[in-house]
Amino acid sequence: MLKIDLNSDLGESFGHYSIGNDSEIINLVTSVNIACGFHAGDPDVMAQTVRKAEAAGIGIGAHPGYFDLQGFGRRRMNMSLNEVQHMITYQVGALTAFTKNKKLHHVKPHGALYNAAAQDHDLALAICRGVQVVDPKLPLYGLANSELITAAEEIGLPYAQEVFGDRNYEADGTLVSRSKPNAVIHDPVEIAGRVIKMVEDQAVVAINGQKVPLKSDSVCVHGDNQAALAIVKELRTALEKEGIKAKTL
Amino acid sequence: MLKIDLNSDLGESFGHYSIGNDSEIINLVTSVNIACGFHAGDPDVMAQTVRKAEAAGIGIGAHPGYFDLQGFGRRRMNMSLNEVQHMITYQVGALTAFTKNKKLHHVKPHGALYNAAAQDHDLALAICRGVQVVDPKLPLYGLANSELITAAEEIGLPYAQEVFGDRNYEADGTLVSRSKPNAVIHDPVEIAGRVIKMVEDQAVVAINGQKVPLKSDSVCVHGDNQAALAIVKELRTALEKEGIKAKTL
Amino acid sequence: MLKIDLNSDLGESFGHYSIGNDSEIINLVTSVNIACGFHAGDPDVMAQTVRKAEAAGIGIGAHPGYFDLQGFGRRRMNMSLNEVQHMITYQVGALTAFTKNKKLHHVKPHGALYNAAAQDHDLALAICRGVQVVDPKLPLYGLANSELITAAEEIGLPYAQEVFGDRNYEADGTLVSRSKPNAVIHDPVEIAGRVIKMVEDQAVVAINGQKVPLKSDSVCVHGDNQAALAIVKELRTALEKEGIKAKTL
Amino acid sequence: MLKIDLNSDLGESFGHYSIGNDSEIINLVTSVNIACGFHAGDPDVMAQTVRKAEAAGIGIGAHPGYFDLQGFGRRRMNMSLNEVQHMITYQVGALTAFTKNKKLHHVKPHGALYNAAAQDHDLALAICRGVQVVDPKLPLYGLANSELITAAEEIGLPYAQEVFGDRNYEADGTLVSRSKPNAVIHDPVEIAGRVIKMVEDQAVVAINGQKVPLKSDSVCVHGDNQAALAIVKELRTALEKEGIKAKTL
Repeated sequence: MLKIDLNSDLGESFGHYSIGNDSEIINLVTSVNIACGFHAGDPDVMAQTVRKAEAAGIGIGAHPGYFDLQGFGRRRMNMSLNEVQHMITYQVGALTAFTKNKKLHHVKPHGALYNAAAQDHDLALAICRGVQVVDPKLPLYGLANSELITAAEEIGLPYAQEVFGDRNYEADGTLVSRSKPNAVIHDPVEIAGRVIKMVEDQAVVAINGQKVPLKSDSVCVHGDNQAALAIVKELRTALEKEGIKAKTL
Repeated sequence: MLKIDLNSDLGESFGHYSIGNDSEIINLVTSVNIACGFHAGDPDVMAQTVRKAEAAGIGIGAHPGYFDLQGFGRRRMNMSLNEVQHMITYQVGALTAFTKNKKLHHVKPHGALYNAAAQDHDLALAICRGVQVVDPKLPLYGLANSELITAAEEIGLPYAQEVFGDRNYEADGTLVSRSKPNAVIHDPVEIAGRVIKMVEDQAVVAINGQKVPLKSDSVCVHGDNQAALAIVKELRTALEKEGIKAKTL
Repeated sequence: MLKIDLNSDLGESFGHYSIGNDSEIINLVTSVNIACGFHAGDPDVMAQTVRKAEAAGIGIGAHPGYFDLQGFGRRRMNMSLNEVQHMITYQVGALTAFTKNKKLHHVKPHGALYNAAAQDHDLALAICRGVQVVDPKLPLYGLANSELITAAEEIGLPYAQEVFGDRNYEADGTLVSRSKPNAVIHDPVEIAGRVIKMVEDQAVVAINGQKVPLKSDSVCVHGDNQAALAIVKELRTALEKEGIKAKTL
Repeated sequence: MLKIDLNSDLGESFGHYSIGNDSEIINLVTSVNIACGFHAGDPDVMAQTVRKAEAAGIGIGAHPGYFDLQGFGRRRMNMSLNEVQHMITYQVGALTAFTKNKKLHHVKPHGALYNAAAQDHDLALAICRGVQVVDPKLPLYGLANSELITAAEEIGLPYAQEVFGDRNYEADGTLVSRSKPNAVIHDPVEIAGRVIKMVEDQAVVAINGQKVPLKSDSVCVHGDNQAALAIVKELRTALEKEGIKAKTL
């Protein structure tokens, strides 16, 4: 039976500030990426979110990002590779401490760090080393076909390839930049259809019509608003209908 | 053979800012308390300091404090008990991630948090629970005779009683407040003599002349300046002469 | 004609995090207290909020607080008086820079700082001095009858006495602590009635039934949620009916 | 009589962390750039440093940088132009508040922000607008011949062109990158000679031997260590011998 992991970013509230629909999305996904206090989240939010995810029995991942709460980790920062490595180790360790078994399911870099590392092999390596230092068997979630995957492979860190049902792909397997037209797909039915094809074909039809091989281990889904939740619900229904199991890796 | 642990605060540099004589003091003590990035230290400093302490073969402790870099963790903050517990778990987890075996030797709260918890049972309990969640066998270093010790005992967390050779004690076993005269002792020879008596008698002569029972597991020493280093050197010499072994717990 | 100022806290969003109903409340009040980036707000939010308040033609006040975003400035911090004074000057200066005429209407301390200073004369003096250094004619908004008022008077800083329509008062003119029953009043009509009596009588009926003198220059109102907005609307209607003018001081 | 301004970065200590030789360098320069709490400095350090500079009677400039204490403002951050503008306004306003006359002498961007803006016209414009909003007559210190100067000119903001006696120049008037050999000059006598020639010729001999026009309003000098102080002393002596007056602009 075919299967796919659905992951979503959670625990992005901070102190007095609440965002996200964590309680709803948590029941629709099979793994979560929990913010670690640098770009979002705080120790209280982390404790609560880990508890919720453990109760839901889904995969708990760390979601480390730049130390930039104002920018929500979405502004690239020119850090040294050593600084990046240690920043990852720090955040992964902090989140691990809140889990029952002191064990995470995966690590997925956040925002600008994720995007930068997808294209920068050295940066990707620094992230992988930061994870490896904590636990050499802890898998990295990285953009399929990107430098994050190459880097993990290079140092022997386990990994999962992440795909996006709501994003168009270039013929080289990268995402169409958000600054270009048609970068993002909004129709829930279309998104669900694309994910199903990704899982079944292990390929995607790029924006130029070409078929591109794409290993799909996990699909990134969002829960920020009702439209996003509707997409996930549609996706789960469509997967079930198609006989594809949503399952933690 | 009598023995005593000597502990010191390390890894208090931050980014561009350097303080402490870590390389010198690390060879004179048997355990260290490493700042965890909240009141001092950053992921790079933590990585380096853990490496140095592992090379020296001494006990590596986490030194969590308030999130207050400007105040160096020395300004009391009115946090809820839950917030304190999670703040401890977070920092202990972050430091643990940098160690080779993902294992710490102890946790010692820093500055205003240490002082507040020594007198506030509920606060002390919150700290102990924050440690216990990470590792129920991870010992707490707390002021001898204080609420930190009572709290650890209450929830079954291992602990070590910390004493100060350079501080005078009240008849009730608490430290003479720094705001009072003669709170601090400066003469290296006198300090060494006091520590030796503490270890041999498991008691201290209070400022009023009365003998007070005091369990001495670990002595806190400083390495901030040359005078502080001189005190530690004098203490090590005196201990050796007396046949007391400086030894990690 | 009797008149009263209505003030509200604004500009409390931060980066990616949005809170408050600034656009609605801004049209219902006659002065605003804008967060200055320490406990809430950031330079972008400050710029936007100042612009909105200038467009509305109402009094623009700085709302400085503790440097504690996680705690939203609601956790007391044990800072030295010098630190408090400089922290105030810094935040007041930062907000001033965004105004068209480089001039503020007032300064109102936030949260735990406000509450602490209302009872601590030295702390209140430090705040007043922090304001006075920026502009000796810049008025302080402080809890009526509190140390904030006494301190401002002592050093010749202008001030306005702030009252709360939704809070019960003790016979000594202080607020009934939120930890006690009946501290907060929820009924919009009752609140409006209390404010009208405060303005007309310059007194309030304390929780024990006693009439207590209370100078009412400005009423603090909230805009966090629809219930809060409903209260302000009811208050404005009631004031108008009674012939009391809502007017910036 | 020829004259030149000597400027230096000051007030870079933070909380418990002390750096720089502010008390020594302040007597050797004619203007200072004071950190504003984002990349270095805190409200207490700012208050003290302004007081010292006012006592010395020299020009007080704001030295705004990225909100990145760990990186000391030396790591480029990918902020939006609006974010940069507001960040500048905020920091300039905060420092202004500590001055006696609520008036600064100049603003000089710090570190990575300075370097990035020297080459990025839009970024330079955002900085200039952030200054202009506070005071349209407040001069910007920018790298001579750089986009900072072009941007200031474009919007009518006063400016001063800054040169470096200890740095080699390319034939196009830009600084030789620190990553290349011979970027930095260390010999005090050579540095003094270069500055004198810059002032007298309003030109510099580039690293390829070519003479490049260079308007020299202010020379940047350092006070971080004894070697740096020795350079400034040598420079002052040489300037005096040559009959060039060190003078605030």
